[in-house]
Amino acid sequence: MNNRHYFDWAATAIPDAGIRVDAPFGNPSSKYEEGRLARQSLEDARKRCATVLGLEPSRLYFTSGGTESNALVLFSLLMRKNRTGMSGLLYSTVEHPSIRENTAPLEQLGIPAVPVGVEPDGRVSPRALERALEKRPRPLMAAFMAVNNETGSLSDLGVLTRLLRSQTGPRIHVHSDMVQAAGKIPVDIPGWDLDSASFSAHKLGGPRGIGLLYLRKAPDPVYRGGGQEGGIRPGTENTAGALALAECLERHARPELVNAAHAEATERMAFLIRALKTLNRCTILPRDREDRDPRFSPYILQAAFQGIPGEVMVRTLDDAGFAVSTGSACSSSSKSRPVLTAMGVEGERAFEGIRISQGWSTTTADIEALVREIGEILRVL
Amino acid sequence: MNNRHYFDWAATAIPDAGIRVDAPFGNPSSKYEEGRLARQSLEDARKRCATVLGLEPSRLYFTSGGTESNALVLFSLLMRKNRTGMSGLLYSTVEHPSIRENTAPLEQLGIPAVPVGVEPDGRVSPRALERALEKRPRPLMAAFMAVNNETGSLSDLGVLTRLLRSQTGPRIHVHSDMVQAAGKIPVDIPGWDLDSASFSAHKLGGPRGIGLLYLRKAPDPVYRGGGQEGGIRPGTENTAGALALAECLERHARPELVNAAHAEATERMAFLIRALKTLNRCTILPRDREDRDPRFSPYILQAAFQGIPGEVMVRTLDDAGFAVSTGSACSSSSKSRPVLTAMGVEGERAFEGIRISQGWSTTTADIEALVREIGEILRVL
Repeated sequence: MNNRHYFDWAATAIPDAGIRVDAPFGNPSSKYEEGRLARQSLEDARKRCATVLGLEPSRLYFTSGGTESNALVLFSLLMRKNRTGMSGLLYSTVEHPSIRENTAPLEQLGIPAVPVGVEPDGRVSPRALERALEKRPRPLMAAFMAVNNETGSLSDLGVLTRLLRSQTGPRIHVHSDMVQAAGKIPVDIPGWDLDSASFSAHKLGGPRGIGLLYLRKAPDPVYRGGGQEGGIRPGTENTAGALALAECLERHARPELVNAAHAEATERMAFLIRALKTLNRCTILPRDREDRDPRFSPYILQAAFQGIPGEVMVRTLDDAGFAVSTGSACSSSSKSRPVLTAMGVEGERAFEGIRISQGWSTTTADIEALVREIGEILRVL
Repeated sequence: MNNRHYFDWAATAIPDAGIRVDAPFGNPSSKYEEGRLARQSLEDARKRCATVLGLEPSRLYFTSGGTESNALVLFSLLMRKNRTGMSGLLYSTVEHPSIRENTAPLEQLGIPAVPVGVEPDGRVSPRALERALEKRPRPLMAAFMAVNNETGSLSDLGVLTRLLRSQTGPRIHVHSDMVQAAGKIPVDIPGWDLDSASFSAHKLGGPRGIGLLYLRKAPDPVYRGGGQEGGIRPGTENTAGALALAECLERHARPELVNAAHAEATERMAFLIRALKTLNRCTILPRDREDRDPRFSPYILQAAFQGIPGEVMVRTLDDAGFAVSTGSACSSSSKSRPVLTAMGVEGERAFEGIRISQGWSTTTADIEALVREIGEILRVL
């Protein structure tokens, strides 16, 4: 990392130093000392996560990450036969691929999925949600990510949930992918009246391969095995991963820490946006994003540079020591920009978009260096 | 681990010292330096696993473990519509829960699953397989574990695969759960003509949360996301886990190392079986298992002690410093012993069964201490 400036925290965070990776080695299902020690550690990790998130420990299930958390809740809930007359999924057109791309296999199973369009700021408006409910008045489930991974747009989860329940009844299951939210913005799962939420450790400075799924009420599992994690997520438990996740949440996602970090990130983002706006070929996406804009996470920015395809900008900045991305790492090999297109960003501009995302160790000096380098590139290309 | 003797390696191995847990932190899908370094490490890990297993790297997919590997291949293959006229699953009655317990959700999806009975030694015989094929002549898939996790029974995979292909045609998909086989017995996936196989790192001294799925030909994915691992297993890749798994395979699963360790384990197992047979209330399960028996893995033994429920023996041995289990840790909370029942072990004896499983650091002195302690317990209980 010498001479490198890392601006792709939304893809994965720079790992926190000193996150523990060791744990009692026993199998938590084993009935002897080594197993009991492992079980204690696992349940301790679950309690610590619950405390940070303000949730009941029994409602938290360790998974292998955000993608699996999203898939488990989608398939377990939607594939189950139910007698409520409710069926299908509403989802925003800017969801992460681990929600959006699953609409195809769901539809192959005969499960309808209705997209909910977003406004130019990338957010689902009550009006758009009402339009989708006209098409599908009794959906079984709705999925709205808390923070968009490409633009930082925030969902008004409390507003959307209230509207959904008032229009369809209390039983609709509302899920939120919180992978880009935990540790970044204040989250209030009980207050927003959510039924499920997904989390990932590696976006929080922790290791890969460990995530969390909150489920207010456990559905039937998708697939089975040894019954671990209440049957929801079978397989020998990743005790070390669970402890690491708990530690990440404690280090970054406690409400008071989130608020303090958010205030600092807001200052740095305002500085970045103001600086970029001085470059005459730069367009912030969406155009009307202000430098301190409550509609957006201050950790993620999308910006386009006229005449320079995003991929070229990523490569050129990389050569100069800066890591930025186009969209999601999870769709970096695709040739489309579905999130920007859904926001109505015109074709050429969408392909010029790059994502700049920051984290707790990003400094104003990093940002100054980045903007200076982009300025140089604009002079040459 | 002071004063403890660990005999539950089949549940999880004692972690190898010095397995690396660090890796380049970048997201392997990212298009800049940090991402490229992570991608190189991930693909290097894949190549190293492939070299040890004698397989093509492109046919290996990293997963979160054995349970997920089994579920992915079952659901991706069986849920897919196909025009071959083949459908459904044949599986042995002694499969791990991550195969056996999935027959219920599969049947809910309208996918038939036909159990194949085992002989008293826990092995599927050609005769039993032929009987199952009479019930379901054109199965799409068959699943036979390489080494049974409760008894050590070995499947004659080459024989079973040849029989399946000769009776149903070459297109049947033959899967094997090799979680207890890799690093323990010689495995020959190409020679046995298998279509898929599952592996797990934590049974090999590695971390939790990382496993491997071999697929001769990739089916449609079960669920989608960012397209990682050829779409088969989406989610940001666990680079550190992949490197750790590669290292575990290199340390333990290279053919020459497997053979040497197998010879030593065979000596220790023969010593254990001979010693247990001197205890007059001990029954080795199955009764006719010899002290060096080519039908069994030398790493796993099931034995019953007349008049002492397995759970009591596990607890009493635990108090004395010995870790053994009843069946699988994955079914340790259930009150049945399906594997022993499938082998025809009579009710009472089945509940007296305990599993004693050894690993590379088990010594003859450990075994002497265990047998001495069991002898003491038999004098008291």
